[in-house]
Amino acid sequence: ELDTTGRIDSLYCRWKPGDPNKPHPFWDSDIGKMIEAISYSLITNPSEDLEEKVDRIVDMLEQEQFPDGYLNTYFKTCEIKNRFTNLYYMHELYCAGHLIEGAVAYFEATGKRKFLDIMCRYVDLIDDTFGSEPGKKRGYCGHPEIELALVRLYGVTQNEKHLNLSKYFIDERGTQPYFFEQESLAYGVDTTKTANQKRHLKYYLKSRGPYAEYQSHLPVREQKEPVGHAVRAMYLYSGMSDIADAYDDVALYNACKTIWDAMANTQYAIIGGIGPSSDGERFTFAYDIPNEYTYNESCASVALAMWANRMVQFDCDSRYPDILEQTLYNVILASVDVLGNKFFYANYLSALPERFEHASAAVIDKMKAERQEWFDVACCPPNISRLMGSLGSYMYSVNETGLFMHLYAGCDAELRVKDTPVKLTVTTDYPWEGSVRIEVGASGGEVFTVGLRIPGWCRNWEVTVNGSDVPYEIRKGYCLIRRIWGNDTIELEFSMPVMQIEARPEVREACGRVALQRGPVIYCIEEADNGKDINNLCIPGECTFSESRGIELVDPRAVVLQFSGFKRNPGGWQDGLYREVRSTLEPAAIKAIPYYLWGNRGFGRMLVWMLRT
Amino acid sequence: ELDTTGRIDSLYCRWKPGDPNKPHPFWDSDIGKMIEAISYSLITNPSEDLEEKVDRIVDMLEQEQFPDGYLNTYFKTCEIKNRFTNLYYMHELYCAGHLIEGAVAYFEATGKRKFLDIMCRYVDLIDDTFGSEPGKKRGYCGHPEIELALVRLYGVTQNEKHLNLSKYFIDERGTQPYFFEQESLAYGVDTTKTANQKRHLKYYLKSRGPYAEYQSHLPVREQKEPVGHAVRAMYLYSGMSDIADAYDDVALYNACKTIWDAMANTQYAIIGGIGPSSDGERFTFAYDIPNEYTYNESCASVALAMWANRMVQFDCDSRYPDILEQTLYNVILASVDVLGNKFFYANYLSALPERFEHASAAVIDKMKAERQEWFDVACCPPNISRLMGSLGSYMYSVNETGLFMHLYAGCDAELRVKDTPVKLTVTTDYPWEGSVRIEVGASGGEVFTVGLRIPGWCRNWEVTVNGSDVPYEIRKGYCLIRRIWGNDTIELEFSMPVMQIEARPEVREACGRVALQRGPVIYCIEEADNGKDINNLCIPGECTFSESRGIELVDPRAVVLQFSGFKRNPGGWQDGLYREVRSTLEPAAIKAIPYYLWGNRGFGRMLVWMLRT
Repeated sequence: ELDTTGRIDSLYCRWKPGDPNKPHPFWDSDIGKMIEAISYSLITNPSEDLEEKVDRIVDMLEQEQFPDGYLNTYFKTCEIKNRFTNLYYMHELYCAGHLIEGAVAYFEATGKRKFLDIMCRYVDLIDDTFGSEPGKKRGYCGHPEIELALVRLYGVTQNEKHLNLSKYFIDERGTQPYFFEQESLAYGVDTTKTANQKRHLKYYLKSRGPYAEYQSHLPVREQKEPVGHAVRAMYLYSGMSDIADAYDDVALYNACKTIWDAMANTQYAIIGGIGPSSDGERFTFAYDIPNEYTYNESCASVALAMWANRMVQFDCDSRYPDILEQTLYNVILASVDVLGNKFFYANYLSALPERFEHASAAVIDKMKAERQEWFDVACCPPNISRLMGSLGSYMYSVNETGLFMHLYAGCDAELRVKDTPVKLTVTTDYPWEGSVRIEVGASGGEVFTVGLRIPGWCRNWEVTVNGSDVPYEIRKGYCLIRRIWGNDTIELEFSMPVMQIEARPEVREACGRVALQRGPVIYCIEEADNGKDINNLCIPGECTFSESRGIELVDPRAVVLQFSGFKRNPGGWQDGLYREVRSTLEPAAIKAIPYYLWGNRGFGRMLVWMLRT
Repeated sequence: ELDTTGRIDSLYCRWKPGDPNKPHPFWDSDIGKMIEAISYSLITNPSEDLEEKVDRIVDMLEQEQFPDGYLNTYFKTCEIKNRFTNLYYMHELYCAGHLIEGAVAYFEATGKRKFLDIMCRYVDLIDDTFGSEPGKKRGYCGHPEIELALVRLYGVTQNEKHLNLSKYFIDERGTQPYFFEQESLAYGVDTTKTANQKRHLKYYLKSRGPYAEYQSHLPVREQKEPVGHAVRAMYLYSGMSDIADAYDDVALYNACKTIWDAMANTQYAIIGGIGPSSDGERFTFAYDIPNEYTYNESCASVALAMWANRMVQFDCDSRYPDILEQTLYNVILASVDVLGNKFFYANYLSALPERFEHASAAVIDKMKAERQEWFDVACCPPNISRLMGSLGSYMYSVNETGLFMHLYAGCDAELRVKDTPVKLTVTTDYPWEGSVRIEVGASGGEVFTVGLRIPGWCRNWEVTVNGSDVPYEIRKGYCLIRRIWGNDTIELEFSMPVMQIEARPEVREACGRVALQRGPVIYCIEEADNGKDINNLCIPGECTFSESRGIELVDPRAVVLQFSGFKRNPGGWQDGLYREVRSTLEPAAIKAIPYYLWGNRGFGRMLVWMLRT
């Protein structure tokens, strides 16, 4: 898809005013994300053809690079003299960040250094340009991303400069005087003047102060809640986590943890969505979790998964993978259709697709409750691709004490625990069944810990090793089994009943309502199964669910729920919208499907939080 | 208030670029509305001081008028050479319309002709400029208003030209080729080209075609539902009703009736609000009646009252005053605080004022769930004033068969029925009590009909004349008593119990919920009485209401409801947003107050549609 929209052509930097396909300031980021996604795919599915395509792009990038290292298709083509003058808006370092991530992934997948070297040269220039030393600009990007990318770069280069530059961007962010004010002054706009503010701070958040939309209202260590543009927020917090880990920076770690808890406890939709305001694609305030008038961008959940993965790497607490798992099996899977061709940008908890047929032209297609093909600002599709490609690295982690399983899915892996090679084979039908079989093949006779996450949704579970009970310790939601591991089989059994879930009383749109959850999978009721009148279906407090497998033409494995509920029967209704209550409840057979599969049988109404009698 | 913001000064046309208080294209309309409101007030409360102020403004307007009759403060001051070139956007004929209405009202109140003559000269110019004759522009205003104003003007001038010009604007509207396209072409913008469309048709409605926002997508006789900007729609339909009546135009009358029914039966909030989309301040689609994410502009309800009043004048059917009454006693009264100083522009059915504290700068104050002082585009306050000032004329109407009471409120009136003078004295505590005493004083010994509207909300009622039952006929919701009227006393007794109201099943945000209504008054529950947790209050199906009078410091007469309901008790709740259902319901004393009085004791949460157990 990238090919046809000119993103590849743009790399030739041939565009001139009047041509179609003017380069977009963000295009380089899509190239970076796509190369990253291709790289993950090359590891498991080598393809000379794909690799050759990437090599061709890398050659072009090399030609595009300036002698001083600068590399940005948009600026080269459209306004080269303005490079590094509008970090607030122009996504320059953000693009660099995604190219860096692509270069790292491609190097890891193929061993080819060319792209990596190109990006190291560019990073040298960035490092020469930004910093606290005299003569450098004290700046950072309006859209965080380069921070985490530089840490990944450091992972392969071990060049301290790369890590330090990331830390610099983290430390500088939100300090006063605000860089974005200084930068604007430099090009002649005083953003402290009200009239300019209005344009400059389009998403000025009255309750948080200037630049909160870009997480730059306060130094990051003083920030206490998720704020502003959700994708930016997640990228920044990911970078903060990386730097907290790399430098053992307790203040930074505490900021991450405080923000995480504020997010998880007050601003997180049960489907794993964040950022309910489409105005600014952002977080709003505690317990503001709307169902229909919401946003929950797919990209934000992808980035949330990235952040969760980082948090759990240095604090093995199941609070992180609980949310990681929830967002993966719900929003993130939902964001792609079963054929893999169409994407949700916005993710609703209550969908009324006709709302968008009647919208004005001001409501862009991205908002639709209907999966879309590729877009102008096509952040989500490549972002989803690269996450899917790297999911393996989310499943477990290893530290000096042992091996920790965060997610459960069939896999074969070879890893090293305390310098001992360990072979890991996981067999499971998770998330549909709660049985997980983990074969550990360790040959060194080493004592180490295997930590097994007990999912937060699970009330009853059992674990055996080679069929027998074993001693274990529970810590931060993990079952820790410490022993000499050889060729052993761990069997986990998570009880996975259907649960009726309620939200805190403060979540106003969930009052009087429940959602259905089975394992990590959140369910919804959809027009395709239940007709248009889903808003009048009620679930009884005591309810028996019948489970079956498969939705025809959509997913043969998914567990489908059927149950006897109630439906409002209005009896006869003359003209008129309102009358004295006369409706009754009559029995109704209701079918619920996994949220992530909705909208694969035409786009109709869909509802997560159902009325409860 | 008009004085301090420069609206009066602007009439001197002294403004030049760089000065503060640049004239706004709509300002003349506020002057018109304010003179109209003052005129009504002068009838009942003569004031030399106020009259002198209006005379001074009229003198200024006279000075501002061009020799050819043209009169528009904004264009004169800011872009005189562009007059009559951008009717799509610039509200030029709309402003003329409001000035005409002001001139008519002032003439009726004072007998002074100067303002009227000024406007007649301007109308002559408009008539010379627009029309189907060769050499004239085939145009009409983007914002309807002049249509109904011209009919009012005809009412005092009896000049057929005024009526014909109104009919011309009605007939021309929505015909092809679209005037707004032609007009744009004339100033060099081809609006059929997509790129220009985006700017030109900011509120292009995909499902209705171009210009539906301005009710110009189809010839008006072919329109079947309310569409687009709600105030424009109501003004247009009012003008259409006037012309249908004046010309006995059945096709036009049928269009009005069809649109009315579509509105009343599918796009009308129970508080009497219309136009739920703040994007375009407009109607959306059938049964889309949201509670919190809504708009329901006060002005739109004022204009709805105007339209209803016109419809009932030539079709004495209670469907019109039923809605007129509902919008009056709910949205329209709510839009002003009890001190008369602050105004709602948007009217919510569920309010969460903190939502606006956390909004971005892009969300204007007008949207707030908190009454505001005067604004830049201050349409609502003067519009409410002029309605309140003219309410007397909404109460009854007279035709060749008799006298028809549409609304019940204490009043003394002298009118002529079949050329007989009739004195009418109404004594009632309506809407708080259902007893209405109407003394009819007719001296001519004439047989005529007294029609008494039986409110749509009323199930049980009784009528007597001089204490005795009388024969009557029910027609279109009116109780018709035909007899020789002398000095007679009609006593009406409308039973006025509290009712639990449900909405049609299609109204998704009212599913599982009820609203309380007593007489025409809709109730709400407010944080001031019930705490913050109003979204977790439930009303039982069987419920006894205890009624009392008065809300301290707000309204000593209002009927307040108290009842025993339930409240969700979450028990202990650890961190986390979601859990398996464990909440219970516990008894709760709930207090409901008339919707129109909410927000007079601080701004907290408010809810109309409550959960029902």
